[in-house]
Amino acid sequence: MQQVDSDIALITQTAPINTPTHGGRAKCLQRLVRLDLPVPRTVALSFNIVHKIAAGEAPAMADILDKFEEEDLLCVRPSSESSDWGGPGAVLNIGMNDEAFQRLSRTLGEASAANIYFRFVQGYSIHVARLDPDIFDHINGQGAQALEEALAAYEAETDETFPQKKSVQLSEVLRSMARAWEGTTARLLRQAKGAPLDAGLGLIVQKMAFGVGRGECGAGVLQLVNSETGLPQITGRYRRQSQWRDALAAGRGTLYLTRDERGVSLEEVSPEIFHKLKEQAELMRRRLREEMQIQFTIEDGRLHILDGVKVAREPRAAVRIAVSLAQSGIIAKEEALMRIDPTTLGGLLHRQVSQNATRDVLGLGIAASPGAAAGQIVFSAEAALACKSREEPCILVRRETSPEDVRGMHAANAVLTERGGMTSHAAVIGRGMGLPCIVGANSIRFHTRRKQLIAIDGRVFKEGDFITIDGTNGEILVGRVDMVEPALDDTFQTLMNWAEDACDIQVRVNADTTADAKTARHFGAQGIGLCRTEHMFFEADRMTLMQEMIFAKSRAEREAVLDRLLPMQRNDFMALFGIMEGTPVCIRLFDPPLHEFLPSDRVGLRDLAEALDLPLSDVTRRVEEMSEYNPMLGMRGVRLGITVPEIYEMQARAIFEATIAASREKNPVVPEIMIPLVSAKREVELVKSRIDAVALGVRAKSGIDFDYRLGVMVETPRAALRAGDIALNAAFLSFGTNDLTQMTYGLSRDDAGRFMGAYVKQEVFPEDPFHMLDTEGVGELLRLGVERARESAPDIIVSICGEHGGSPESIAFCRQHRFNYVSCSPFRVPVARLAAAQLAISEQRP
Amino acid sequence: MQQVDSDIALITQTAPINTPTHGGRAKCLQRLVRLDLPVPRTVALSFNIVHKIAAGEAPAMADILDKFEEEDLLCVRPSSESSDWGGPGAVLNIGMNDEAFQRLSRTLGEASAANIYFRFVQGYSIHVARLDPDIFDHINGQGAQALEEALAAYEAETDETFPQKKSVQLSEVLRSMARAWEGTTARLLRQAKGAPLDAGLGLIVQKMAFGVGRGECGAGVLQLVNSETGLPQITGRYRRQSQWRDALAAGRGTLYLTRDERGVSLEEVSPEIFHKLKEQAELMRRRLREEMQIQFTIEDGRLHILDGVKVAREPRAAVRIAVSLAQSGIIAKEEALMRIDPTTLGGLLHRQVSQNATRDVLGLGIAASPGAAAGQIVFSAEAALACKSREEPCILVRRETSPEDVRGMHAANAVLTERGGMTSHAAVIGRGMGLPCIVGANSIRFHTRRKQLIAIDGRVFKEGDFITIDGTNGEILVGRVDMVEPALDDTFQTLMNWAEDACDIQVRVNADTTADAKTARHFGAQGIGLCRTEHMFFEADRMTLMQEMIFAKSRAEREAVLDRLLPMQRNDFMALFGIMEGTPVCIRLFDPPLHEFLPSDRVGLRDLAEALDLPLSDVTRRVEEMSEYNPMLGMRGVRLGITVPEIYEMQARAIFEATIAASREKNPVVPEIMIPLVSAKREVELVKSRIDAVALGVRAKSGIDFDYRLGVMVETPRAALRAGDIALNAAFLSFGTNDLTQMTYGLSRDDAGRFMGAYVKQEVFPEDPFHMLDTEGVGELLRLGVERARESAPDIIVSICGEHGGSPESIAFCRQHRFNYVSCSPFRVPVARLAAAQLAISEQRP
Repeated sequence: MQQVDSDIALITQTAPINTPTHGGRAKCLQRLVRLDLPVPRTVALSFNIVHKIAAGEAPAMADILDKFEEEDLLCVRPSSESSDWGGPGAVLNIGMNDEAFQRLSRTLGEASAANIYFRFVQGYSIHVARLDPDIFDHINGQGAQALEEALAAYEAETDETFPQKKSVQLSEVLRSMARAWEGTTARLLRQAKGAPLDAGLGLIVQKMAFGVGRGECGAGVLQLVNSETGLPQITGRYRRQSQWRDALAAGRGTLYLTRDERGVSLEEVSPEIFHKLKEQAELMRRRLREEMQIQFTIEDGRLHILDGVKVAREPRAAVRIAVSLAQSGIIAKEEALMRIDPTTLGGLLHRQVSQNATRDVLGLGIAASPGAAAGQIVFSAEAALACKSREEPCILVRRETSPEDVRGMHAANAVLTERGGMTSHAAVIGRGMGLPCIVGANSIRFHTRRKQLIAIDGRVFKEGDFITIDGTNGEILVGRVDMVEPALDDTFQTLMNWAEDACDIQVRVNADTTADAKTARHFGAQGIGLCRTEHMFFEADRMTLMQEMIFAKSRAEREAVLDRLLPMQRNDFMALFGIMEGTPVCIRLFDPPLHEFLPSDRVGLRDLAEALDLPLSDVTRRVEEMSEYNPMLGMRGVRLGITVPEIYEMQARAIFEATIAASREKNPVVPEIMIPLVSAKREVELVKSRIDAVALGVRAKSGIDFDYRLGVMVETPRAALRAGDIALNAAFLSFGTNDLTQMTYGLSRDDAGRFMGAYVKQEVFPEDPFHMLDTEGVGELLRLGVERARESAPDIIVSICGEHGGSPESIAFCRQHRFNYVSCSPFRVPVARLAAAQLAISEQRP
Repeated sequence: MQQVDSDIALITQTAPINTPTHGGRAKCLQRLVRLDLPVPRTVALSFNIVHKIAAGEAPAMADILDKFEEEDLLCVRPSSESSDWGGPGAVLNIGMNDEAFQRLSRTLGEASAANIYFRFVQGYSIHVARLDPDIFDHINGQGAQALEEALAAYEAETDETFPQKKSVQLSEVLRSMARAWEGTTARLLRQAKGAPLDAGLGLIVQKMAFGVGRGECGAGVLQLVNSETGLPQITGRYRRQSQWRDALAAGRGTLYLTRDERGVSLEEVSPEIFHKLKEQAELMRRRLREEMQIQFTIEDGRLHILDGVKVAREPRAAVRIAVSLAQSGIIAKEEALMRIDPTTLGGLLHRQVSQNATRDVLGLGIAASPGAAAGQIVFSAEAALACKSREEPCILVRRETSPEDVRGMHAANAVLTERGGMTSHAAVIGRGMGLPCIVGANSIRFHTRRKQLIAIDGRVFKEGDFITIDGTNGEILVGRVDMVEPALDDTFQTLMNWAEDACDIQVRVNADTTADAKTARHFGAQGIGLCRTEHMFFEADRMTLMQEMIFAKSRAEREAVLDRLLPMQRNDFMALFGIMEGTPVCIRLFDPPLHEFLPSDRVGLRDLAEALDLPLSDVTRRVEEMSEYNPMLGMRGVRLGITVPEIYEMQARAIFEATIAASREKNPVVPEIMIPLVSAKREVELVKSRIDAVALGVRAKSGIDFDYRLGVMVETPRAALRAGDIALNAAFLSFGTNDLTQMTYGLSRDDAGRFMGAYVKQEVFPEDPFHMLDTEGVGELLRLGVERARESAPDIIVSICGEHGGSPESIAFCRQHRFNYVSCSPFRVPVARLAAAQLAISEQRP
């Protein structure tokens, strides 16, 4: 690499400074210079030259020092491409030596001069000479005495006197910082934050403004908004007779900025400077189009702006800041949308453990559903329901959950399971409900029978003890921990409305219950993309009917039971249609294996035998007969629908009758009926002919006409491969990426937890494919499926409705292949809408 | 359809008679005419004209009758395209009436004339007038009296006198036969035998040769080979004063043909005629290039050949006949190969229930592995082993089998399970071992705990009772039933050698044991395509070691156990290499989930706790922890190989050490190592680097060099889709179509049995995809996989090694896509070789 002109550039309005070559800080400082703000003289060193310095090919220090006065003290700060990537700490007061000490003693006073020199010796020793910080520990007091002791300590450790030449000092500081950037730890840390392998470091060399000395002297930071809320509020700190960011360290003598805070404020102490500072901050906000934190120094009454950085912000503040910048006309709405990381939205929708809370961690697991909740430990769905009835909060603790636990999950405030991964039953249902959930917590021991949890450290927790589940980070905490409430204010809705305007792919919701549907409508879902009807059958009264149906001895007996389920199911759909107000509702026909409705333990079997008035041996035999080796690959979905056609017929009737009822209530809907687990075209033909017949029957009986669409859930690789055939009998195809991933990998999501962590760590898989859509394998099937389906039915509606539906990566994939919509769990809807909007906006940008 | 010249064609040497227009019998008769054989005058009616007759547009009878003498009596016989498709029965003696009766009474005698007339009246009444056969039951005696009673019975039933005009008789007969062909039952029956929807019927009208009358008169059949064995033997029957095939009905007066059979023979009675007949039969064999059964009639010492049909034959006879025709130079070897239906070969390789045995069926199931065996009922592998040690035959009866039962299966003579389908564990292992097997026998009740089987009709069978399993047709028979031995003679070997010459795709075997390997070598397998190493660990001593390994607490402890397994595994491979004599041996690394090695019942858990000297609760806990929801989709295959790398390392070491030992014994082998259940390229890279390291170590330690090939078993849809990446690190890809089918359909083969029957019946699936390769779905993945693999590695070896490997349909698919070999279970090897040869031959034909 050749050294070029811009490698060592004095920052002026026109200097060739750019973020990709000099880093963000250098560029930002140039912007401040262009705004005529009082920025001390600054030189930017490019990535190129810093890389050379690290390699031992430093330029002549004169090339840098020439750009400053001989007496200037300097500070050096990192300037990487993104401020997120970190960098070495700043080194202040370079150029301080015995001579400067004498000079500054005269201008600033000896105490201040000694303080500055001491601080430089200390910083240089630790960061540059890499001495042990504790060699300065014995030094008490301040002033010249302390300085001498520090210089002596340096000499004792290094066998050299403290370097007096500014060029040597600077050269050593630059080398040290350049090398630190190339260290392994620093590289891994920044890579984890998304930095590329060859991310460069720029450095800026700035003339020191002194916050110590005569007159009003000090340093501080200021910003115009509250970092927690994003609301306008001048916040910051100022400390007299201090350098740099000392004001941020708590302690006596720190001033607030404005009058309205407690204590003496900068506004009172120095109203002129305060108002100038405020003006300059507002100018920066307007011209830099961002809320900035200003780092300033006051030197004998004169204001210097040393730096400006983006205000750090909580997710909820990020939303308000972006919306308010757009509403002020400073940025466009699209820009506001682009500034929010969709994945942080989750935090806005749930209660969270307060950042100030004390965390006594009793165990860890997989953070499967975000948000936090505290409650008593209960070990069964029944106990959870009992708690609910007493209005006591509870945490449902299970080895794993099954459909039978769903009612208990509804009653609980959070769920904790020993087994499972991101897409285990508990995790999927938990996210759907917005219920905080930790799964795969095998760091603690579950004695569910003894009703005990044994913490990592051996502490025993029993039923009734309070714990807190932090589903956002996977920590299980002792007791009730402080929470902050979710933030769903107007600003959030405004952002969502803008997102909708920008979106070019629809976002629907996976919703099984009226509660889900309401949440989703609130979050702006454009319809239901997946309504899993089976959950409707796990309620106590229906469960019993389902069991009666399973034990029915004839079609007639089975139909009699289904006739009793029909009105319940019809009511389910009427309620959903009512909430969804004419937006599409896609109902998946019954999917799970029937044995999920049967008990497997002794007590359950006995109860069932009693309920059905059958010998226990008969019940046991039937249950055994129905058990499966691999339920995921067994008798469920359309296979059940074809073998026991009465179930689908009842469901179709319920849907059509609810459709008629909805149209009577001026709430017309075109229901979509989806056939699960299809693998062959003929399955679709058979179900279609039966459902069409039911529709004819309902039309004839009611005398009322209605429309409906029949489609296929593509969950098997075969259905994707044969999508060309299947599309001929389907109005839509919806890819169920959960099951499709399981089958494409030959990997059960419930069993994958055991090794997925190790697999991802060893980079066998780049990511858990249940967590992030595997675009290379599963995506290949989606691509083939959509391509083949469109070849035979160009107007077919295609979508995905698996757990992946809400993730930005899947939405990008779906947009790329022109899917009509994605469907995701209610609490993912806002995330999906924002991500979709961002993708559309990015594409329109040049 | 227009009537054309050939619609009513006198069969001469040059008449335009063809099988597709006139049927096989007409064509065959023309061939006999061309050989100058004494065939009575015959007219062939085309499919076209018979179809018109059925539609009521019969031609003028004169067009037919003109071709005969006025006094000729006629018979009509069906002539469809294939003799397998059946057809209406022959009607004899058309033209018989009162006048003819008088005439024939003069020439043949009254008794014979009356007999002929009676017979015609009876045949006409039943087949044409559709009268109830029992109207003739009351007629006793023969001669003119009986005839009159018959004519009276006809009149009484029809209110008409018996038709006297020959043209009317013929017209009615033709109409009746033409209509019968179009009936629903007849159509369904012939479609079941492969006839197309529009299969036509031709009819032949032949002048009757009388087997009754003065001088040497009679009728019979003759063939030159034994239908059971295919060995040369003049067989047949002759009956004096009889018509048609009366000789075949048992009864007094029937003569054998040759001297060497018991009783008076045609050879003695009429040596000239016998020798002429024999000469003509030999001529037919030579010129018709087939073993024919001749139907002949002797009329006053003159021989007439009425018909010739392919000799019916048992599969073993079919092989001998084809080979012997080729060896006599009558047909080419390729033609001989084409004449054997590969699917019938299975019957040659196993004992079968004798065709004459009395079958007392106690229940039915799926015929999962062909062959028959009788033995005592036992309900556990242990009991089977006990029987074996007492040298008593036994039938292992289980609800289903698991790997723990394999030793018991080796000890048993047949297996019967309540559950499962064609590809359940019992079925697959059974076919591999050549062990007769019936699965899915849910027509009977299994009380395995009470050690009872309850037959369909309620009879109870208990442990120790004898039953016979007919794995060829799925019948479970009471007691010990007569068997016939398998027929693996020189002829069979000759056919197999010819097949090998014709083959252009290799056939390997799936063999896990030395017994399998020996069988397969005997059947001509060209290597082992799949050696499943896990079966080697289910033997009692190794099982214990496996359990110790599972409970090991550290890598070191685990390695110590594996060190003890190493020499056993090395011996396994040395033995296989020895038997396979340098042909390729492809070893699949350990595949099943570890929990298959753990007990699940109380007693087993207690035994294990004792054996490992651990508390029962610890053992129970560990076993519970390891259980999986969907074992098929869980922690097995390469996932286990990566998580517990010591297992693969031990196996690789054993393979390499055995390779060195084999080369020392002048039996050099290039072992192939196959990684199971791969879904991502990185899995292959990780295992490859470890195995390469083991190879380096073994080479360094032994100082001996050796080669090996590392490949991938493609069992997940993802591996097929990503075959392009994966091929970069693999010398070969072998498609495991069992698992691939399961995952492509999302269908467990163990659970599919419950509905597959109904599914195939309703034509949801055209065939059970575990039974016949699903070329549209699974085949699509094979096609994509091979295409993508070859794009990145043009010389990669590709094969299939699932259960489908041996079926003609899969072989056709594999040849079409240029697979290098197929691998199948030992007893499928001959089937596969023959099928492959036939495909190659068909393709070469114009």
